[in-house]
Amino acid sequence: MIKTNQSEEILGFKFAAEASGIRKSGRLDLALIYSEVPARCAGVFTTNKIKAAPLLLTEPRIAAGLCQAILVNSGNANACTGAQGLRDAKRCSELAAAVLQIPEEYLAVSSTGVIGAPLPMDPFETSIPLLAKNLVFDGVEGVSQAIMTTDSFSKLASCQGEVVKTPYRLLGVAKGAGMIHPNMATMLGFVLTDAQVEPILLQEALRRAVENSFNIITVDGDTSTNDMVLLLANGAAGNREICSGTAEGERFVEELTGVLLELAKMIVRDGEGATKLVRIRITGAASDGDAKKAANSVATSSLVKTAFFGEDANWGRIIAAVGYSGAAVDPERVEICFDDVPVVRQGISTGKELEAQATTILKQAEFTVTVDLGLGSASADYYTSDLTYEYVKINADYRT
Amino acid sequence: MIKTNQSEEILGFKFAAEASGIRKSGRLDLALIYSEVPARCAGVFTTNKIKAAPLLLTEPRIAAGLCQAILVNSGNANACTGAQGLRDAKRCSELAAAVLQIPEEYLAVSSTGVIGAPLPMDPFETSIPLLAKNLVFDGVEGVSQAIMTTDSFSKLASCQGEVVKTPYRLLGVAKGAGMIHPNMATMLGFVLTDAQVEPILLQEALRRAVENSFNIITVDGDTSTNDMVLLLANGAAGNREICSGTAEGERFVEELTGVLLELAKMIVRDGEGATKLVRIRITGAASDGDAKKAANSVATSSLVKTAFFGEDANWGRIIAAVGYSGAAVDPERVEICFDDVPVVRQGISTGKELEAQATTILKQAEFTVTVDLGLGSASADYYTSDLTYEYVKINADYRT
Repeated sequence: MIKTNQSEEILGFKFAAEASGIRKSGRLDLALIYSEVPARCAGVFTTNKIKAAPLLLTEPRIAAGLCQAILVNSGNANACTGAQGLRDAKRCSELAAAVLQIPEEYLAVSSTGVIGAPLPMDPFETSIPLLAKNLVFDGVEGVSQAIMTTDSFSKLASCQGEVVKTPYRLLGVAKGAGMIHPNMATMLGFVLTDAQVEPILLQEALRRAVENSFNIITVDGDTSTNDMVLLLANGAAGNREICSGTAEGERFVEELTGVLLELAKMIVRDGEGATKLVRIRITGAASDGDAKKAANSVATSSLVKTAFFGEDANWGRIIAAVGYSGAAVDPERVEICFDDVPVVRQGISTGKELEAQATTILKQAEFTVTVDLGLGSASADYYTSDLTYEYVKINADYRT
Repeated sequence: MIKTNQSEEILGFKFAAEASGIRKSGRLDLALIYSEVPARCAGVFTTNKIKAAPLLLTEPRIAAGLCQAILVNSGNANACTGAQGLRDAKRCSELAAAVLQIPEEYLAVSSTGVIGAPLPMDPFETSIPLLAKNLVFDGVEGVSQAIMTTDSFSKLASCQGEVVKTPYRLLGVAKGAGMIHPNMATMLGFVLTDAQVEPILLQEALRRAVENSFNIITVDGDTSTNDMVLLLANGAAGNREICSGTAEGERFVEELTGVLLELAKMIVRDGEGATKLVRIRITGAASDGDAKKAANSVATSSLVKTAFFGEDANWGRIIAAVGYSGAAVDPERVEICFDDVPVVRQGISTGKELEAQATTILKQAEFTVTVDLGLGSASADYYTSDLTYEYVKINADYRT
């Protein structure tokens, strides 16, 4: 049972957020997540070869396996800032470790906001001690607000699990209003659990859950310099350790995937300028790889996305996007449905009447487009938004 | 010396265009290009696995090496029309071959317009005999108009060459207002020459010329079901045959590339909703493949394209697009210029003053963004447009 957008108790984690002045608007812009004991951790980082300074600092620390605090700011991505950027990220981590009295290696730093501008250090010097002083158990909502950039709402999701009658909790917070905004720099996700989890399972669970959540959404097809998803498990629930290769381990992966998928869908729903959340479902593909390729191609096509905005059941654009995806396709076997209304059978139109029915489905805020390739049994889902005037407006005007 | 948008005499080719009624607007929508003798030919066709009926019919005919006439219509792409679509394309070719009294195998057919609607046959039955009767030497402008869909202007380019003092001519006509419009189905190019050209060179020249013209432009990143470029050489100039592996052959490739590149740039300039033509130039790449990957990634990024529209020298988006392109990149070696104004050196900003200068360059209708990766000597050019409100409007509203 996954709950979204409500604060959830989780054992042994504390939170704080400040309006430090990095953002001139006076909004919350700096946050701290703290575990009472060093937590086991796993991370997934952007595949962009241009990595921001906080990632260069944090990635090896997470790889070492223990993390006790995450310091995160919005308003400045500390990306493309060279050697100074790395020194600034290091200084932030030193400050936070000192006031928290923890080893600096247990500190993760994360930034999101404008690329290429130097990090203003005064807000960090002033506010980090305040954050440490103001840590509270029920402060996650402040964190979810402090990491927002173009997000129009904050994003929380949580669920409960159980190991031999011992309950544990998963709590995720994310930001992003586009899969990818090099400039807004962009998708961040932090997931906490008070469960005791075997380290090897932690990494495997995060990899699999991200693959089926944050990696199947698209708003504009770009990939940021600052993306990171961290998973911290502090064991405060006191459960028997959850291990890889067990039924409990599989359930943990499912729960984690569920939490991340809810956060991912919130990101698409909040996609810059988006008015619709559309699931692209490919079925009948010859292989898993083909299913993903076809889903990605349809979900990313500017022409398909503008047709969604125009509420036009323009299946020609969908079939063409499948055609150039690289997936095996036999035109005479393709079937396309909008929710349960078939508009294409055997590669050709089912007629004007069904197309008119499909058009009413396009007026909904959420719907599914299913493309059955009729070649095999592989399938894949992607989530995408529509491409709107507002997207162009937000991104044309962002810095000016 | 390449001339654009003016009708050019070329020996042995005749043209005709009609308002046949396929388009309800009463615009020219059906055209015929005719060579007085069977011409040697070469073709390049869409890589989309969903191919329209006219391509299925024409591709093997062009591969056989001789073509005497091209029948082309706008208003209907005859794509995703199944077995009926193939019968309709065949019927068009039969009609034209009969009135022209040429073998049907010498006839190429081509269609552009809406996907998925059956081809209305009455206009073809009525107008094909008129086309054959009205063929004239100076009729290429009518052809360039008849193949337009969302194009806002028609596209012609031509040049002259010479073999041992015998002049010959190249004349190209194209349509497209987006590299790719599955629904508008999309990029067509027909190039005629009265030169005598060795068949093997003809195919090689077209392949190389397309690689450096139509294949380095992007408007929206989609690939159509109907793209085709045909090259016909009828030998009417009476020159000594131009052969592969000679200086004359290389010159012919260069001339052909020049003509196609002019047409390609016209397509980008006429990109749906576009207000700018931007050359993306990658230099210093480790390999040719890397240079192309990086150029394609920057040219295709929605965030880069909206920043161009917003006249924002947002180099963070450019560097991020290079970062996720798959090309080798060392952040500390990247340099970025807008025309001759450097905004990034060694991966970081050159400061606010130069960025302000760059912003004035972005106000121009045409400019070049150069990204020097500083790793090697490979380079690549791409041409792209900006992403505008108007693009969204055109594509959201197209069928409604």
